[in-house]
Amino acid sequence: MQTTADVSHLAQEVIDRCRRLASFSEDPDSIRRTFLSPPMHKVHQEIAAWLEPLGVTPRVDAVGNLRAALPGPESAPRLLLGSHLDTVPNAGPFDGILGVVLGTALLQESIARKFPYAIELIGFSEEEGVRFGVPFIGSRALVGRIDDDLLARQDERGTTVRQAIKDFGLRPEQIPQATLSGDVGGYLEFHIEQGPVLEKLGLPLAAVESIAGQTRMDFIFNGRTNHAGTTPMDLRYDAVACAAEWVGCVERVARSTPGLVATVGSFEAKPGATNVIAGEARLTLDVRHGSDPRRTQAVDDLIRQSKEVAGRRGLSVRSFMRMNQAAVNMDPELTNQVEMAISKSGCKPHRMVSGAGHDAMILAERVPAAMIFVRTPGGVSHDPAESVAVDDVAKAIECGLHLLDQLASSKTLRARTCRA
Amino acid sequence: MQTTADVSHLAQEVIDRCRRLASFSEDPDSIRRTFLSPPMHKVHQEIAAWLEPLGVTPRVDAVGNLRAALPGPESAPRLLLGSHLDTVPNAGPFDGILGVVLGTALLQESIARKFPYAIELIGFSEEEGVRFGVPFIGSRALVGRIDDDLLARQDERGTTVRQAIKDFGLRPEQIPQATLSGDVGGYLEFHIEQGPVLEKLGLPLAAVESIAGQTRMDFIFNGRTNHAGTTPMDLRYDAVACAAEWVGCVERVARSTPGLVATVGSFEAKPGATNVIAGEARLTLDVRHGSDPRRTQAVDDLIRQSKEVAGRRGLSVRSFMRMNQAAVNMDPELTNQVEMAISKSGCKPHRMVSGAGHDAMILAERVPAAMIFVRTPGGVSHDPAESVAVDDVAKAIECGLHLLDQLASSKTLRARTCRA
Repeated sequence: MQTTADVSHLAQEVIDRCRRLASFSEDPDSIRRTFLSPPMHKVHQEIAAWLEPLGVTPRVDAVGNLRAALPGPESAPRLLLGSHLDTVPNAGPFDGILGVVLGTALLQESIARKFPYAIELIGFSEEEGVRFGVPFIGSRALVGRIDDDLLARQDERGTTVRQAIKDFGLRPEQIPQATLSGDVGGYLEFHIEQGPVLEKLGLPLAAVESIAGQTRMDFIFNGRTNHAGTTPMDLRYDAVACAAEWVGCVERVARSTPGLVATVGSFEAKPGATNVIAGEARLTLDVRHGSDPRRTQAVDDLIRQSKEVAGRRGLSVRSFMRMNQAAVNMDPELTNQVEMAISKSGCKPHRMVSGAGHDAMILAERVPAAMIFVRTPGGVSHDPAESVAVDDVAKAIECGLHLLDQLASSKTLRARTCRA
Repeated sequence: MQTTADVSHLAQEVIDRCRRLASFSEDPDSIRRTFLSPPMHKVHQEIAAWLEPLGVTPRVDAVGNLRAALPGPESAPRLLLGSHLDTVPNAGPFDGILGVVLGTALLQESIARKFPYAIELIGFSEEEGVRFGVPFIGSRALVGRIDDDLLARQDERGTTVRQAIKDFGLRPEQIPQATLSGDVGGYLEFHIEQGPVLEKLGLPLAAVESIAGQTRMDFIFNGRTNHAGTTPMDLRYDAVACAAEWVGCVERVARSTPGLVATVGSFEAKPGATNVIAGEARLTLDVRHGSDPRRTQAVDDLIRQSKEVAGRRGLSVRSFMRMNQAAVNMDPELTNQVEMAISKSGCKPHRMVSGAGHDAMILAERVPAAMIFVRTPGGVSHDPAESVAVDDVAKAIECGLHLLDQLASSKTLRARTCRA
């Protein structure tokens, strides 16, 4: 095991490298690096330069994922280690990136250890869904889920995914070769928590036991547009007042269901003038829970309550399902190993549900997947103020090294034919 | 007095004429006639053609008001009769217009009666505030409230009020000559109610006793933008949830204060994404009441409650006063005469507060002013579906004729030097 001083030095290097990658941006004054955008070339070159002294030469697969393999003994299983390299607009330097850069550090530390398995570091090209409105394009390629519909999708400028791949110098016909090979025994992703839970608990790391299922809906309340001055209160069909009452229901349902989060993130009044009673209100709803039945129950309750509130006020309401995604469990055996490694690093183990989607969720369709969350100061992410503490990154490296050691001596990591 | 059959015929003609004027529009498929827009020329020509057989030739004053005088005996007082000729976008055919066209009908009926006063019909050029964001430009000119700031205001295309006046063929330097002369003894305005109250009461007409005072404000609630999936309910500072709770306060304060109307017409969440807890919510507030102290009390309560709700949730709130307009009383003596005329027309008299602003509010600064509301089916106005019933217009004409008779035999209408 490395000394604490060594790990601290390595942790600082990881942070410095994340900040260095943040300088490769589409926007001059903020971080924005969408799928196959020009600065992604520079990110690949930079990471390649870090790996060169290790004798590892990364390649870029046909959807733009950076892939750097450290071979193991013949017919040994392969451990995937990664996260994503794309960002949202006005991003912070660590979301996704930290997992890839931590991977380079672990790869570096692995060279001398001669683990009985291969390691492949992956920097996914796309997770955020910004450019084409579809997330996880990078990890989808690994599980064979890139179809013609997806390749034909257009960005704001009318460029298709297929054309974007060509413009980046890649060949769409080689996408099938990006899929997971049969030797892959597991996927491990470090990621910032992006929430305030670990900070509140005073813990640097957590094992993710599942990724919450997610429902996204639109609600449209329809009343009657009327003059704000001439319509007495008892003769109104005010869509804003009605929708606002229902927002209260959303809060109450969420607060009374442990582990549930429910959010009305958008609230639009039409026509939206100071002196006009709104005839229409359009709201979004986002509901997440680690348990699908609890999530579905909450959504059903909220649909029923929207009708009850609207009906009582003489308005109508329509709701539209936009996303209905089941929860995804991480691999129990690999997650046990993660928890053990967290303990060995001197941290109190903690398990949590990830409220956000991650590449691990896609990989879990085909290989045992596990995730480790790193405490996020203030819970701030998707924001230039996003940060990580050097001590927490050091703990993450320690945990990663313990985990790699454990996997060497356990049977957790087994080569397998990819699950169907 | 005319027979009912005559008045019905006249009422139908008034409605037909309103619909005819509606055909002069800036938009091909809907009614939109803003201040000094080209179709206003055609409206003036059309009304002039109706008045020609009466021997009355209208002029257009320097802010574009159509003014048609029927002289009375020497040094007799003058009664102003009018409303506005401009419209909102996608308007109905009666808001404003009905008052002017009813005026032409009353003028027509007055010719033979030789009333002991002069009558001046006025079609105001601007009441809605659409083109320059300032309402009442037409009536302001009559009370001497057009200043250089107003003349320098620009529309969307950068044209100033001053230039618009010139483009219409008028001379801004003649604006002072548009002001009320000392012989004016009263102003009378017929207008659609624009609300559902008369319909609910089953009455065709009402005397307006005052025009409600009005407060318009903006409220900005600031919380913390966070990830909708990773932030537990008890660690949120959700601006939408907070603002929605306050919308409930607005409803409760309004419902518990007789005669008060309060409206949140606009509700904007930022950043406004399905999967992001809004860090900011911007709302508008519109509060109106016939009594200024009651309105002010309600506004103070709502500001206090916004702070209470925000404070309890750990958010902040700022409020900005955008308009704070006192209530305007109509002239009690003239309003008594209106009420008497409504009774003589066979209708139950009813007095109400106007929740909307009207030209009468501006004229009331200088001369005794009164208003008569005409029932508005469904309370629908500022909409192509805006309508009036022919029987109600007939009652309005009857009421108008009784009123003109009453003014001939009472001392209500007295020439006076304009009030300061």
